[in-house]
Amino acid sequence: MPKNTDSDLQSQFANKAQAWSARFSEPVSELVKRYTASVEFDQRMAQVDIQGSLAHADMLASIGILTTADLTSIERGMARIQEEIANGSFQWSLDLEDVHLNIEKRLVELVGDAGKRLHTGRSRNDQVATDIRLWVRNEIDIAIELLHELRRKLAGLALEHADTIMPGFTHLQVAQPVTFGHHLLAYAEMFGRDAERLADCRKRVNRLPLGAAALAGTSYPIDRERVARSLGFDEVCRNSLDAVSDRDFAIEFCAAAALIMTHVSRLSEELVLWMSPRVGFIDLADRYCTGSSIMPQKKNPDVPELARGKTGRVNGNLVALLTLMKGQPLAYNKDNQEDKEGLFDSADTVRDTLTIFVDMVGGIRVKADAMRAAALQGFATATDLADYLVKKGVPFRDAHETVAHAVRECEQRGCDLADLPLADLQGFHADIKEDIYQVLTLEGSVAARKHIGGTAPERVRIEAQRILGEDSD
Amino acid sequence: MPKNTDSDLQSQFANKAQAWSARFSEPVSELVKRYTASVEFDQRMAQVDIQGSLAHADMLASIGILTTADLTSIERGMARIQEEIANGSFQWSLDLEDVHLNIEKRLVELVGDAGKRLHTGRSRNDQVATDIRLWVRNEIDIAIELLHELRRKLAGLALEHADTIMPGFTHLQVAQPVTFGHHLLAYAEMFGRDAERLADCRKRVNRLPLGAAALAGTSYPIDRERVARSLGFDEVCRNSLDAVSDRDFAIEFCAAAALIMTHVSRLSEELVLWMSPRVGFIDLADRYCTGSSIMPQKKNPDVPELARGKTGRVNGNLVALLTLMKGQPLAYNKDNQEDKEGLFDSADTVRDTLTIFVDMVGGIRVKADAMRAAALQGFATATDLADYLVKKGVPFRDAHETVAHAVRECEQRGCDLADLPLADLQGFHADIKEDIYQVLTLEGSVAARKHIGGTAPERVRIEAQRILGEDSD
Amino acid sequence: MPKNTDSDLQSQFANKAQAWSARFSEPVSELVKRYTASVEFDQRMAQVDIQGSLAHADMLASIGILTTADLTSIERGMARIQEEIANGSFQWSLDLEDVHLNIEKRLVELVGDAGKRLHTGRSRNDQVATDIRLWVRNEIDIAIELLHELRRKLAGLALEHADTIMPGFTHLQVAQPVTFGHHLLAYAEMFGRDAERLADCRKRVNRLPLGAAALAGTSYPIDRERVARSLGFDEVCRNSLDAVSDRDFAIEFCAAAALIMTHVSRLSEELVLWMSPRVGFIDLADRYCTGSSIMPQKKNPDVPELARGKTGRVNGNLVALLTLMKGQPLAYNKDNQEDKEGLFDSADTVRDTLTIFVDMVGGIRVKADAMRAAALQGFATATDLADYLVKKGVPFRDAHETVAHAVRECEQRGCDLADLPLADLQGFHADIKEDIYQVLTLEGSVAARKHIGGTAPERVRIEAQRILGEDSD
Amino acid sequence: MPKNTDSDLQSQFANKAQAWSARFSEPVSELVKRYTASVEFDQRMAQVDIQGSLAHADMLASIGILTTADLTSIERGMARIQEEIANGSFQWSLDLEDVHLNIEKRLVELVGDAGKRLHTGRSRNDQVATDIRLWVRNEIDIAIELLHELRRKLAGLALEHADTIMPGFTHLQVAQPVTFGHHLLAYAEMFGRDAERLADCRKRVNRLPLGAAALAGTSYPIDRERVARSLGFDEVCRNSLDAVSDRDFAIEFCAAAALIMTHVSRLSEELVLWMSPRVGFIDLADRYCTGSSIMPQKKNPDVPELARGKTGRVNGNLVALLTLMKGQPLAYNKDNQEDKEGLFDSADTVRDTLTIFVDMVGGIRVKADAMRAAALQGFATATDLADYLVKKGVPFRDAHETVAHAVRECEQRGCDLADLPLADLQGFHADIKEDIYQVLTLEGSVAARKHIGGTAPERVRIEAQRILGEDSD
Repeated sequence: MPKNTDSDLQSQFANKAQAWSARFSEPVSELVKRYTASVEFDQRMAQVDIQGSLAHADMLASIGILTTADLTSIERGMARIQEEIANGSFQWSLDLEDVHLNIEKRLVELVGDAGKRLHTGRSRNDQVATDIRLWVRNEIDIAIELLHELRRKLAGLALEHADTIMPGFTHLQVAQPVTFGHHLLAYAEMFGRDAERLADCRKRVNRLPLGAAALAGTSYPIDRERVARSLGFDEVCRNSLDAVSDRDFAIEFCAAAALIMTHVSRLSEELVLWMSPRVGFIDLADRYCTGSSIMPQKKNPDVPELARGKTGRVNGNLVALLTLMKGQPLAYNKDNQEDKEGLFDSADTVRDTLTIFVDMVGGIRVKADAMRAAALQGFATATDLADYLVKKGVPFRDAHETVAHAVRECEQRGCDLADLPLADLQGFHADIKEDIYQVLTLEGSVAARKHIGGTAPERVRIEAQRILGEDSD
Repeated sequence: MPKNTDSDLQSQFANKAQAWSARFSEPVSELVKRYTASVEFDQRMAQVDIQGSLAHADMLASIGILTTADLTSIERGMARIQEEIANGSFQWSLDLEDVHLNIEKRLVELVGDAGKRLHTGRSRNDQVATDIRLWVRNEIDIAIELLHELRRKLAGLALEHADTIMPGFTHLQVAQPVTFGHHLLAYAEMFGRDAERLADCRKRVNRLPLGAAALAGTSYPIDRERVARSLGFDEVCRNSLDAVSDRDFAIEFCAAAALIMTHVSRLSEELVLWMSPRVGFIDLADRYCTGSSIMPQKKNPDVPELARGKTGRVNGNLVALLTLMKGQPLAYNKDNQEDKEGLFDSADTVRDTLTIFVDMVGGIRVKADAMRAAALQGFATATDLADYLVKKGVPFRDAHETVAHAVRECEQRGCDLADLPLADLQGFHADIKEDIYQVLTLEGSVAARKHIGGTAPERVRIEAQRILGEDSD
Repeated sequence: MPKNTDSDLQSQFANKAQAWSARFSEPVSELVKRYTASVEFDQRMAQVDIQGSLAHADMLASIGILTTADLTSIERGMARIQEEIANGSFQWSLDLEDVHLNIEKRLVELVGDAGKRLHTGRSRNDQVATDIRLWVRNEIDIAIELLHELRRKLAGLALEHADTIMPGFTHLQVAQPVTFGHHLLAYAEMFGRDAERLADCRKRVNRLPLGAAALAGTSYPIDRERVARSLGFDEVCRNSLDAVSDRDFAIEFCAAAALIMTHVSRLSEELVLWMSPRVGFIDLADRYCTGSSIMPQKKNPDVPELARGKTGRVNGNLVALLTLMKGQPLAYNKDNQEDKEGLFDSADTVRDTLTIFVDMVGGIRVKADAMRAAALQGFATATDLADYLVKKGVPFRDAHETVAHAVRECEQRGCDLADLPLADLQGFHADIKEDIYQVLTLEGSVAARKHIGGTAPERVRIEAQRILGEDSD
Repeated sequence: MPKNTDSDLQSQFANKAQAWSARFSEPVSELVKRYTASVEFDQRMAQVDIQGSLAHADMLASIGILTTADLTSIERGMARIQEEIANGSFQWSLDLEDVHLNIEKRLVELVGDAGKRLHTGRSRNDQVATDIRLWVRNEIDIAIELLHELRRKLAGLALEHADTIMPGFTHLQVAQPVTFGHHLLAYAEMFGRDAERLADCRKRVNRLPLGAAALAGTSYPIDRERVARSLGFDEVCRNSLDAVSDRDFAIEFCAAAALIMTHVSRLSEELVLWMSPRVGFIDLADRYCTGSSIMPQKKNPDVPELARGKTGRVNGNLVALLTLMKGQPLAYNKDNQEDKEGLFDSADTVRDTLTIFVDMVGGIRVKADAMRAAALQGFATATDLADYLVKKGVPFRDAHETVAHAVRECEQRGCDLADLPLADLQGFHADIKEDIYQVLTLEGSVAARKHIGGTAPERVRIEAQRILGEDSD
């Protein structure tokens, strides 16, 4: 068995071309090296790469491919590498192309032949697939927790404002009065589904590709279930070609991220709108706003605007990954190296945005008077008048028509429905009685909508309490 | 209570502007009517619209809003409408804007006031949200069944070809021998995950929005759980604003559809490649191919090419829906009318494509000899030689280097590794013995990869049987 | 030379498989036929298909491939076919797959062998590429004209409102006063660039692919320049492989369409916002609005909302075409059949939307009082105060800081800057004099910004006149 | 006039909140600061930011707002800052949010009040818009030059291979023989159009927004044409609201970049395919390939694969920007900060990819024998036989049918058309004579296609020479 010397290591790993140099007659150029290297962005997977390698080494030892001494050396070397990375002394090299070769080369420097034995029965193809899954799994867990925190914050604020009445809009026109608490809980529902989606995605992420080797599996009697258990995977990928070449789990994550940010964009749009002086429903704490370099009076809701803008990049990342994967023949192709930056960026965007929103919800100052004033504009209780007539036996379509006439009259007079004298109201329909004025109040309108999903304060309290009482998992 | 006359109906429903005319001073123009109408594409939801209306009517009767006589009239009218639609005699009118008003107007014509009472306690906003969910649920069920059928077809062919050896490619270069059965099962895995994703999506689709009314719920004491049970919904949407305004479930479906078609695009790419004369691994049955208007000799794999091209439209539909939803304030906005065409198109594309692929898999004629000949090119068993050395105690990285030297020598001689005499092989490493020639055969290489996920014929049989034995649900 | 009989025609064209049947042993199934046929959507290219065929026939006659009699027959046959299509009597057949075979088959029915000679020296590959270019060219010309009409409408309204002051927003916060005319002209600029982009795209569209035949050109001595002249093409595509296989011009058109609709989405967002009761800057004519099926008081700005939503589909179509084209090897592949529906849809969307907006701009009723009242909120002239100080020699950064203090004071007092007594203003900076009150008026503020691009009424008039005076080209 | 002290500077610029602190009661948190800051990615605009500031200062001096002494100070300070950036000593601060404030703050440190006067009459809104345009303009110029270099490289190789015959494919089936030179020139055409598109885009990029200030223009009598001349802009943006808020030029650039990469993806697909052992048409120089960590024999065409994969990110960036801009009300919103990273990434991707392809084309080793052998498969000259018959007077459709019968016969015999004895050929059609064998050769087939755009060697030479003779502009 050849003795490994330091100069061998040098020649073998000195640069990435060297790693397979025996068959190559010329090295790659500097530009090619930079173009094809991934270490600048994949080094953030170092932690999970080491985690995967340790589980692999442990398994190799369990089936006798590695000696206990080799395993101990590898564990020692990896501990050292983790330290070096943590304290910033690890030397990342573009010549070594990616996080995997960088770490492996350092391991061989530190522990010699044991390090060279680590890559037995695996390939970078299944190694990187494993790393990405471990990385995404972790991001999913963080995002789910953040979504639940955000839901609780929204529910908390909803509870405070279960009775605060604002105009409910459709088409940005006043439609019916709703409670602000109810409005906030709509977002709690959306973020709840986002968390469900991530949990579903996690099932498909959490399957072990390691053991697929380059594409066909390996001739070693590997114990994949042992590795899966070590790494907390629920299952083992059942086809090696599929395991190394598909990235559907990453695309699914990016799609879920796009929906999270779509929901964030809607909330952001409303926050910006509500803070606009013509609307004036809320004020955002100064720490989420910035001023202007030229207009001294400005206070701009930068955070929700920027969050809204960031919907663009997560949609873009999703398209990037779908485009990338389209029409790729099996098995691994270099195209797949492009899967990571978009994925990382979507995960970072979701994490940062949710973190900041969790805090920002506490910085919303509600201007209940402005909300109420706005709800009194625009005939918000017209539907209640129609419902009133229906309860008297008028077919809904006829009641709808009757109220439309009354609204038109009010518009001409410049008053609200509740301002019409009873006699005038009765002119539109004889069945209208004195009790109509209760129906036409904002409080009466919202209180009546108390079924599941309705905007009534009592219902808002029930729903908010339910969310606040949830286990976060 | 005013008696409903036919001329009232006329004036009330004569055109869509008329439906809310009392408040409007001018009708919409022809162009606006066409621009804003949806009946041309949403009439395909007629069946589910009626289904939803019947459940709503049943509930209204159960809480005393409708009389039994009204309910019976509505049921009778709806039965008649279903017949008319089925036999093509139903008159769809652009003036009535959408499927909902078209059906409701006809119902009022048929049954009078009972029909006018149907819309009590609901709005088109929750009505259309319910319709879409019923429609998508149905498409999901069909697509899941088709995915399972396709998986079984693939598994059936895989079983036939558990022993057929082809070159496994990475980077479209020969990597290691694999079995054709194993290759097919990679797609069975992908389509399996696609079915899982749809099943997960179905959970979020299958929640009842009806009862949310326009946006705030209704003042009637509706029984939403009863409606949910009638319509087979698992749950009731718990926030009315969310229920009428979010379409995340439709976007999630479109994302799942994009992944299905991405997988289809990969299989298609391979079918086209395999059928190209330079590769020649398969032939596709004539019924999936077309000829040329100019080149009389051509036989083109049109179906997989077109399927690959259709990845474009499903990706596009996904982007369309995400773009549409970005930054929309609550609650319903007219933008949402744009949710349907893309959704329908993605569902149709998936359904047609899977149906055709289920059949096409049976039309694949395998040219095993060409596959085998190709596997003998390109040093496909070089990894096996490296593994052989590792089992003799050589560190993997050194073994890899040794084999690279041997491959280079073979390239210069124009021969395969198995063609080198033992003495020459031993020149690369002294530990190589006579038993190496078994290792270097294609059969030896694939048989050794028998762990879970490996390419060995025995493993392919196990996996194919597993899939064939699955319940389709 | 074989005599052509009707039953030959029958067997040759009876269905698309038949068109190349001699080499095929089984017909395509009904599903495959439907899946691969394009006649349902490409029949709208019939007019340009015939136009292209006539130019081709004329050229074939000019080089002696067709006799004058043949040419006359073809022209007669095509005239008849155009009539049949115009009056709806033309029988489109799915069996004949696409618009080209449908027309050719009918031509052969009508004029016999002359019709069979028409396809000499061309292929469906270059034929369809020619058709699409002719079709897109026409849509470009229409869209450019509509964009200019829309610009003129905006400029007309801008001229009327050159002096109408509204708050200019950044971050939806009041920034500085602007004139409504100036605001409208911002859109005229955007649509102007959109028209430029289409004109640039047209140059690349307007090159003749015919003559590329299937992929390699033809062995006939064709005169491509003659065909180009007949059809009004500026140039001839200089490489046959490129001519039949690239669709970059269609993607470029879709990208230009996406930008048009992006600009429309921004204008729509503002129209919706301005019409919201809390803002109340404008009212849209009833014919662009619809009511609610449940809320009798509603008047919803459906048209701008829907237009905003349609941004989704044009973005989606762009992604669809880019996805479709990615990674396609030369030359023509069936994937390309998917280029049309998205392209048609983007063109239709742009055409309908612009047509409706040209009319809708005339239906904008401006509420100048509400605009003015809003401009008086939010310290819109704070920048003018800072500029005033700078003109007195204060460095801008210091002036900015000074004004910020003054604004803070006003906020606490609940007044505007112009409401502070001179003495108080001088407390912030001693150089402030009585003339400051002129500077702090809305009129003073806008009038001062009279340089090119500024918001001053006099500048708005100049710019609006310039646009109104433009030739529409 | 207040004397500027260092501690003032400290308080004024110490962090971004401080820049507008007088109106804010709490600073932004660390997370908000990081979330909203852009300096990490916009510092690459430092060079153009300074360039813009110098032109602005020069103009301010020309109209008397700055003294000559101030201007000199600013120029001196900026020169120093450029040096500091060049030598890496410039201290970028996240607290100062973006490249503009970082540079301005340093300028004030270096030159005091003169620096504070620089921001007179402008805003960050028009400043950043100017910077982006200058930056994109430069990238366009580089990309156009690279596209022309690549075209010349392709034309050079085409000239060498004007006579090299390969099979032309449609549907990846052998269609007709083409010359390899002709095939390469197809890409030269595509990249030529890409360069045109960028040149057209450049016209819209090259308009000056500076002078728009925050949104409405400025009350100073600025000379925008002077600034435009200094900076090499062709025109001045004619509407301030549009100038600060639209980014259509950046989206247009991203769309052009997406088309460039789409073309690259097609060439890459072919390079990968051609290098696959089953096809074997070319070999790529080792420096564009990498090996495998597990399979010692591999040589993978990493560069074209990765380039193909990078189509994803440019498509994604385009979607990101379109999404971002959709529905934004005027004028500037913080969303727009998101315009830069995607734009930068698309420009970098195009630049790196084109640079590497320019070099890689020289590393293509053509295997002419394999190409020829493949062209002899698959009845590539069947169309020539049909054309031959047509020249004898047979209507094309009948000739097509006749040849299809002959091909079928050959398939059954396992021979090529040219292998059939004359008697047998005449059995298909009596007009076939001895001269048919010349027509059926590959050389005869390609030579006959000598019209503009045809594949004939003589035509390839003309076209290649034309491209090589072009001025690169």
